[in-house]
Amino acid sequence: MATEIEQQAMRRALEAARATSRTLPNPRVGCVLLDAGGLELGVGAHEGAGSPHAEVRALEAAHEAGHDVRGATAVVTLEPCDHTGRTGPCTRALLEAGVARVVHGQSDPDPAAAGGAGTLAAHGVDVEGGVLAEEAEALNVEWTHAVVTGRPFVTWKYAATLDGLSAAPDGSSKWITSAEARRDVQRFRAEADAIMAGTGAVLSDDPRLSVRSEDDLPLPYALQPLRVVVGETTIPSYYRVFDRVAPTLLIQSRDPEVVLERLVQDGIRHVWLEGGPRLAGAFWNAGLIDRVIGYIAPAMLGSGRAALEGEATTLADMRPLEITDLTTVGPDIRIVAIPGRAPREEMP
Amino acid sequence: MATEIEQQAMRRALEAARATSRTLPNPRVGCVLLDAGGLELGVGAHEGAGSPHAEVRALEAAHEAGHDVRGATAVVTLEPCDHTGRTGPCTRALLEAGVARVVHGQSDPDPAAAGGAGTLAAHGVDVEGGVLAEEAEALNVEWTHAVVTGRPFVTWKYAATLDGLSAAPDGSSKWITSAEARRDVQRFRAEADAIMAGTGAVLSDDPRLSVRSEDDLPLPYALQPLRVVVGETTIPSYYRVFDRVAPTLLIQSRDPEVVLERLVQDGIRHVWLEGGPRLAGAFWNAGLIDRVIGYIAPAMLGSGRAALEGEATTLADMRPLEITDLTTVGPDIRIVAIPGRAPREEMP
Ligand SMILES: NC(=O)c1ccc[n+]([C@@H]2O[C@H](COP(=O)([O-])OP(=O)(O)OC[C@H]3O[C@@H](n4cnc5c(N)ncnc54)[C@H](OP(=O)(O)O)[C@@H]3O)[C@@H](O)[C@H]2O)c1
Ligand SMILES: NC(=O)c1ccc[n+]([C@@H]2O[C@H](COP(=O)([O-])OP(=O)(O)OC[C@H]3O[C@@H](n4cnc5c(N)ncnc54)[C@H](OP(=O)(O)O)[C@@H]3O)[C@@H](O)[C@H]2O)c1
Repeated sequence: MATEIEQQAMRRALEAARATSRTLPNPRVGCVLLDAGGLELGVGAHEGAGSPHAEVRALEAAHEAGHDVRGATAVVTLEPCDHTGRTGPCTRALLEAGVARVVHGQSDPDPAAAGGAGTLAAHGVDVEGGVLAEEAEALNVEWTHAVVTGRPFVTWKYAATLDGLSAAPDGSSKWITSAEARRDVQRFRAEADAIMAGTGAVLSDDPRLSVRSEDDLPLPYALQPLRVVVGETTIPSYYRVFDRVAPTLLIQSRDPEVVLERLVQDGIRHVWLEGGPRLAGAFWNAGLIDRVIGYIAPAMLGSGRAALEGEATTLADMRPLEITDLTTVGPDIRIVAIPGRAPREEMP
Repeated sequence: MATEIEQQAMRRALEAARATSRTLPNPRVGCVLLDAGGLELGVGAHEGAGSPHAEVRALEAAHEAGHDVRGATAVVTLEPCDHTGRTGPCTRALLEAGVARVVHGQSDPDPAAAGGAGTLAAHGVDVEGGVLAEEAEALNVEWTHAVVTGRPFVTWKYAATLDGLSAAPDGSSKWITSAEARRDVQRFRAEADAIMAGTGAVLSDDPRLSVRSEDDLPLPYALQPLRVVVGETTIPSYYRVFDRVAPTLLIQSRDPEVVLERLVQDGIRHVWLEGGPRLAGAFWNAGLIDRVIGYIAPAMLGSGRAALEGEATTLADMRPLEITDLTTVGPDIRIVAIPGRAPREEMP
């Protein structure tokens, strides 16, 4: 059992983790060190690949503050890792520092990293897992998915009218949704590792696929997700997707599995799929969409391009989603949903 | 100025009006009679064509209770009528009863009935209008529209997937939305004067277009809205729209204006348009849809029939709506919206 003080420390560790920006391909992790009396000795969070893990950061903070960490308790949102990557295993750092107890939230889902708790326990550390585990897991939904399934988590974002259309018959689609909705998209894009579109959308709309601030200025290159263009057609080099603002990867394949395979190799855990309807349809048909974020403009078009070009023949092909969030963004509606397994009713 | 006591009486009159069921082609009206001291003498509401108006009901209730109504104040949600229809004018009833003051909510929008306040004032009655007028007008949105424009108010109801589809490619459409959503529709249908569909929807789905209770039993014939089937194709007599549950009117025209003209002559003030996509598209294109109620199933189909078959060519043809209500009904989303005039943003 974690004490009340340890649970409070876990809440601070969660906050520290939430305050980080993209850490991918690594998870977001926070750590708080407590002395035997419950006093906070140091706080740390992981800031992304190549920088120290949260536990090491917290130990450093405690040392800098002149604290003795021997016999301390480490409260960490994710089970400490036990493998040597670009940084040494956290288990070793904790053992060397003389930490006596480790309280963690989410268990490490990565088979390559698991065993941290076991190693610590084998060295006499008192280990307690699963504390505020749900909140800890919520920090790293996409990362966990990628680690468990071996393929990136795919969020498909679309914008459509109430009658489900994403472009007029002449191809015009700027703008179906409001400026507020488009700003909201920027916020989500910034959290992804890659922003993906098909050659069709790129050729017809010349999107930038980069992340911009409120003033439409691009974020620094290092903070830009990878831009990914999928399809066999060559995109001329003057298209905006090739500007110098962010890296761009072309994947000349029409197989969604191949695309995701390629991306996971590059350390991509979370793909933000922006369409168009054919590429989205291919991922949808393959069951490779893990979350849908729809921006729906309160407007009717009456004819045009569907947001999704899939392959249904009869109503039984309809695939249910579960709404996890429904809100308005400016004049528009935003729906967040995840594919569900709830069977639809049959005809009576 | 209406007194605090009169405003409270207006709230009771509004409640009495709300408690009525369909009164069409007449408006919903409630009336409360107060004596000089503010004591309630009687309450009445109009129960529909052929039955007494709210003022007369309230006078009757006061007489039955043995009250003297001379010098009383009549608080009524709608300006008393001044014309002789199936019942005499309310102005005369109020004058004959010796009412000294009339406080009303909505002003009568009907040019054929207007002048009630003027007639009363000309006979020495103290008249005060516009009290809680917004709430009073909300009672009779559809009726007011019909009276002002000379054509029925049209509510278009549709059910669709998130990608805007109302039927699979093979025509199957039972059921896109949940049982909860379909029950919700029954509640709205019951409030309309007519339930309309095109020959296409009737031939393909064989809908009943009647109002049923929770147990799927039809409401009494007298409470059923008129069923209206629009189109030139003959519907065989064994279709369910011809069952004995409710009256049915065939309108063999493809001109929405002609259809509404025909319906207003029959006293229809509020039409509940259930589709299909071509008939809805014709009304949409003609600008004859006054409210949209969409039930959106959290599901994707990928291909099928659009909910609306309209006539857009480019994005500027997109017609904005203003959302007046957004909620979930069981697993589905319900959107209520009215056509807006808000200009959409231009491409930057
Ligand atoms: N409102 C929105 O949310 C939104 C977003 C994006 C686009 N759009 C609209 O969508 C339209 C473009 O539509 P689109 O369908 O051509 O765009 P798309 O889906 O971006 O591109 C289609 C292309 O994707 C490639 N592709 C890769 N894998 C595929 C697969 N498994 N199946 C099919 N294609 C695959 C193919 O390229 P190759 O032929 O090169 O192999 C195909 O031609 C534009 O009008 C645009 O405005 C709307
Ligand atoms: N999910 C829903 O909310 C919903 C509701 C209803 C139907 N549906 C689906 O819609 C499909 C039926 O589609 P539909 O388009 O054939 O049905 P529809 O719109 O009900 O009927 C089309 C017919 O309406 C008549 N019509 C009258 N005025 C018209 C005008 N101005 N323009 C065009 N037609 C006019 C024409 O009949 P004539 O040719 O006889 O003159 C036309 O053929 C079915 O698959 C059904 O399941 C879905």
